[in-house]
Amino acid sequence: MTARIALDAMSGDHGPSVVVHAALKILSEFDDLQLILVGDEAVLKSLLGHRSTKAIQRLSIHHTGQQVEMNESPSHALRNKKDSSMRVAINLVKQGLADACVSAGNTGALMATARYVLKTLPGIARPAIITALPNMQETCTHVLDLGANVDTTPEHLFQFALMGTVLAQAVDNLPQPRIGLLNIGQEEIKGNENVKEAAKLLSHNPSIHYIGFVEGDDIFKGTVDVVVCDGFVGNVSLKTTEGVAKMINHYVKQSFNRNLWTRFAALISLPIIKNFSQKIDPRRYNGASLLGLRGIVIKSHGSADVLSFTYAIKEAIIEVQKNVPEQISHILATLLNEKGRVK
Amino acid sequence: MTARIALDAMSGDHGPSVVVHAALKILSEFDDLQLILVGDEAVLKSLLGHRSTKAIQRLSIHHTGQQVEMNESPSHALRNKKDSSMRVAINLVKQGLADACVSAGNTGALMATARYVLKTLPGIARPAIITALPNMQETCTHVLDLGANVDTTPEHLFQFALMGTVLAQAVDNLPQPRIGLLNIGQEEIKGNENVKEAAKLLSHNPSIHYIGFVEGDDIFKGTVDVVVCDGFVGNVSLKTTEGVAKMINHYVKQSFNRNLWTRFAALISLPIIKNFSQKIDPRRYNGASLLGLRGIVIKSHGSADVLSFTYAIKEAIIEVQKNVPEQISHILATLLNEKGRVK
Repeated sequence: MTARIALDAMSGDHGPSVVVHAALKILSEFDDLQLILVGDEAVLKSLLGHRSTKAIQRLSIHHTGQQVEMNESPSHALRNKKDSSMRVAINLVKQGLADACVSAGNTGALMATARYVLKTLPGIARPAIITALPNMQETCTHVLDLGANVDTTPEHLFQFALMGTVLAQAVDNLPQPRIGLLNIGQEEIKGNENVKEAAKLLSHNPSIHYIGFVEGDDIFKGTVDVVVCDGFVGNVSLKTTEGVAKMINHYVKQSFNRNLWTRFAALISLPIIKNFSQKIDPRRYNGASLLGLRGIVIKSHGSADVLSFTYAIKEAIIEVQKNVPEQISHILATLLNEKGRVK
Repeated sequence: MTARIALDAMSGDHGPSVVVHAALKILSEFDDLQLILVGDEAVLKSLLGHRSTKAIQRLSIHHTGQQVEMNESPSHALRNKKDSSMRVAINLVKQGLADACVSAGNTGALMATARYVLKTLPGIARPAIITALPNMQETCTHVLDLGANVDTTPEHLFQFALMGTVLAQAVDNLPQPRIGLLNIGQEEIKGNENVKEAAKLLSHNPSIHYIGFVEGDDIFKGTVDVVVCDGFVGNVSLKTTEGVAKMINHYVKQSFNRNLWTRFAALISLPIIKNFSQKIDPRRYNGASLLGLRGIVIKSHGSADVLSFTYAIKEAIIEVQKNVPEQISHILATLLNEKGRVK
């Protein structure tokens, strides 16, 4: 099937060059993909140059005169950036002119704008941000919420579990993704009231394959396919992951750089280090979904390079092909009819 | 000065052998240290054998007939294990027969028992668990709370900041430890009400060198000396750290084990890998303090080996030498008089 994807071309730390090159790369990989570069036409045209491949015929430019800054407040962006590349890319989804949009822009502004323009699905109280992380099983673990909601109720966590189920089914082709609720392992206090209540809701639902409580290290053990948590906790866990990985990388480099001998050893070890780095390469896991909206919105990491941005576009393609929002709607409607549990 | 430290000798995944050998090792390092092995006398005597060094004269055995199991509920341990090695080690601190105690037992039971026997310091609403983690600055970052409290108020977070200040001053000899409040980096929602309120309390206190909000990756960047957070968040962050480190270790080993060539490369790289592993060796960071009690209680990781357990004992020695509980009391009393802020 054809997928039409709008790219917020002015977004990200490295600007339109990364988005344009990622677009060209992925067009050559997917025959029926159509891409819309949303942003400053002059800039985009100059980056495209005089290419005249067949693939480029599936690429169009939609001019906009504004862009949302990385540190701009969501409310400011909402009020003042109606002609921004971010806003217009989302508008194209709303208008049915694109099936999904991808942005490497400011997460807060993207969530606020997407929510304002697209609205949430019926039955979904709060959209959530979900991403995949590598695990020891050589599969991946989806984690949500990663920061869209900082005061979730048990009901919200239940809805996250539901949306996570649909996403893991779509992306990983798992018929029954295993769902875990993130908790702490201290014996005395098995979590706060919030997770205890959410566990009750999850235990009695046939649509969710609920495994039970999991801990922070289970994300990387691959104990479950989807880890559900409050956005505050999820964001801290995600940033902790980035921090540990960077620190280890820093010390590895430092150790291999100490003297001539270690640099020689580094040369020998390089292909091996590359081999394991690939398995946990954060670029391969780029592309967080804003779930629960009436449309597909993918957030790329701000610092994404070309390869990394293509993974975010691939995430969008999969979600279009599997029609994730409709599937979430469908499962919600079924639950509403059956149980009246989802408010 | 002499430090007398009671060791819960029946605790930990590897049992009394680790504790006994750690005790012998550290006695030879500290001339004036006195250790009390608390546990089954017959078992401990047989492990000690017929050693007759000078150091061993500073080691005594305190017999107990029970032990707390790793998965025993804190309330069960409190009611039924009055003659356990854990309880008696804490009793020795209460009775003034030891200056501190160290246990590798069940965290929940240790916290509940320590709190019941020793009580909290005046002005401290909740004790907290603090540990040090490695960072890129080759110093360490102290993080609290790690799971003793899952529903903290801004006032609790303020007290954690205060206790963390005292601990970092004592352990790292920092006159003015930098304090950060763990938060999320999403632009829209800079945290929940809890951290926002705590930030206000922290901003206007001369006893605390408050830097502002930090994120999960700042723990490993070394942006601040102490990171303050709710116990749920702290525990998830700690377990995430363990999980990422284990996964990277797993993939490194796997990559170096693929074939003869990679195994040869591993041989060459081994000393280099050892060099950086040492910098982030979790054994060197063993020894979490239960802060806010009228006495010094150190929790060792359950899976600690001999080297690791000695680090937990060293933590106890430092806290005895610096008299951490009294310093916390002192700073609290000053604040109570000055501000009436701490309830």
